[in-house]
Amino acid sequence: MSSPARSELSESQIRNLIDRRAAAVRARDVGAAAAMLAGPLVQFDVVGELSSLGAQAAEQRLKQWLESFTGPIDFDPAEISITAAGDVGFAHCLNHVRAEKIGGGEIDMWWRSTMCFQRIDGRWKIVHEHDSVPFDPATGKARLDLKP
Amino acid sequence: MSSPARSELSESQIRNLIDRRAAAVRARDVGAAAAMLAGPLVQFDVVGELSSLGAQAAEQRLKQWLESFTGPIDFDPAEISITAAGDVGFAHCLNHVRAEKIGGGEIDMWWRSTMCFQRIDGRWKIVHEHDSVPFDPATGKARLDLKP
Repeated sequence: MSSPARSELSESQIRNLIDRRAAAVRARDVGAAAAMLAGPLVQFDVVGELSSLGAQAAEQRLKQWLESFTGPIDFDPAEISITAAGDVGFAHCLNHVRAEKIGGGEIDMWWRSTMCFQRIDGRWKIVHEHDSVPFDPATGKARLDLKP
Repeated sequence: MSSPARSELSESQIRNLIDRRAAAVRARDVGAAAAMLAGPLVQFDVVGELSSLGAQAAEQRLKQWLESFTGPIDFDPAEISITAAGDVGFAHCLNHVRAEKIGGGEIDMWWRSTMCFQRIDGRWKIVHEHDSVPFDPATGKARLDLKP
C-alpha cells in the first residue's frame, strides 16, 4: 500500500474541534476552549518557559492573554492540515490574530501552531500543543512581522 | 474504554527513528537524517520564515547548520514523549545541542521539538516538524538560555 491508512471521520472531527476552539477564542469563552485540552497537556508556548504542564496552566495563560485585549478579537487559523487514524491525530496551521490591546496599540500577528490529539473516552482532546514564531539569528529578535 | 488505543510497536519504531536521527546529526550524516523526512514535509523551523516546504529544503538547512560547527557536536533529545496508533504518530522532546562554532564561540542551547509521523510504504517518515524557542515579550528577544 502506498498511502498510509487515515480516517476521514477522525479528521473531520478534529477539524470541527479546531473550528469550535477558534470560535471560543473569538468569544473569549476560556472554559469552552480549555474543555478541549487533556488534563496532562504538554504545552510549548509562544512566550515564557520551554514547556508547561497541565490544562489548568494553559487555561490560565489563555485567560490572561484574552484579558489583554479590548474590543473584538479576530482569530483565524489558516492553512490547516489534519492527519488522523484510530485514536491518534495531529494538525498544524498558521494562526492570525488581530486585536486592540488594553492601554493602546494593535496586535496583528501570525504564528505557527501544531496540535496533537488523542481520543479519550470517545472525545478528541489536545494532549500536546506547540505554538511559536521563528527568530532572526542576526538580531536575536522574535519575528512578529511575518506573513504567510 | 478510558484510555485510547495505542500501538507499542509503532511507538518503539518511532523511538528508534528519533535515536537514529540524533546519531546521524552527531555524525554529520545529512543524508541519513534526511532519509527520515517525507518528501512533502512541512517544517516550522527555529529561525527564518514561518514555514518551509519539502524535505530538500530541510536537508539543505540541516547541512548549513552542521557546517557552522567545528569539532564534535553533542546533540541529545531529552524528555521524549511518543504516541502512535496505526500509521499515525507524534512525538515531542527538548533538544540540547552543544558545539563549537566556526569562527569562535560555543553554542549550548535547548529548544522544543514536535515531530509528526506517518508510516508510508511500511516506513515511518516525519511529515511535519516544529522546532522553536519561546521569546520574552518584555524584550522581544528569543530565549536561547533556557534549560529544562
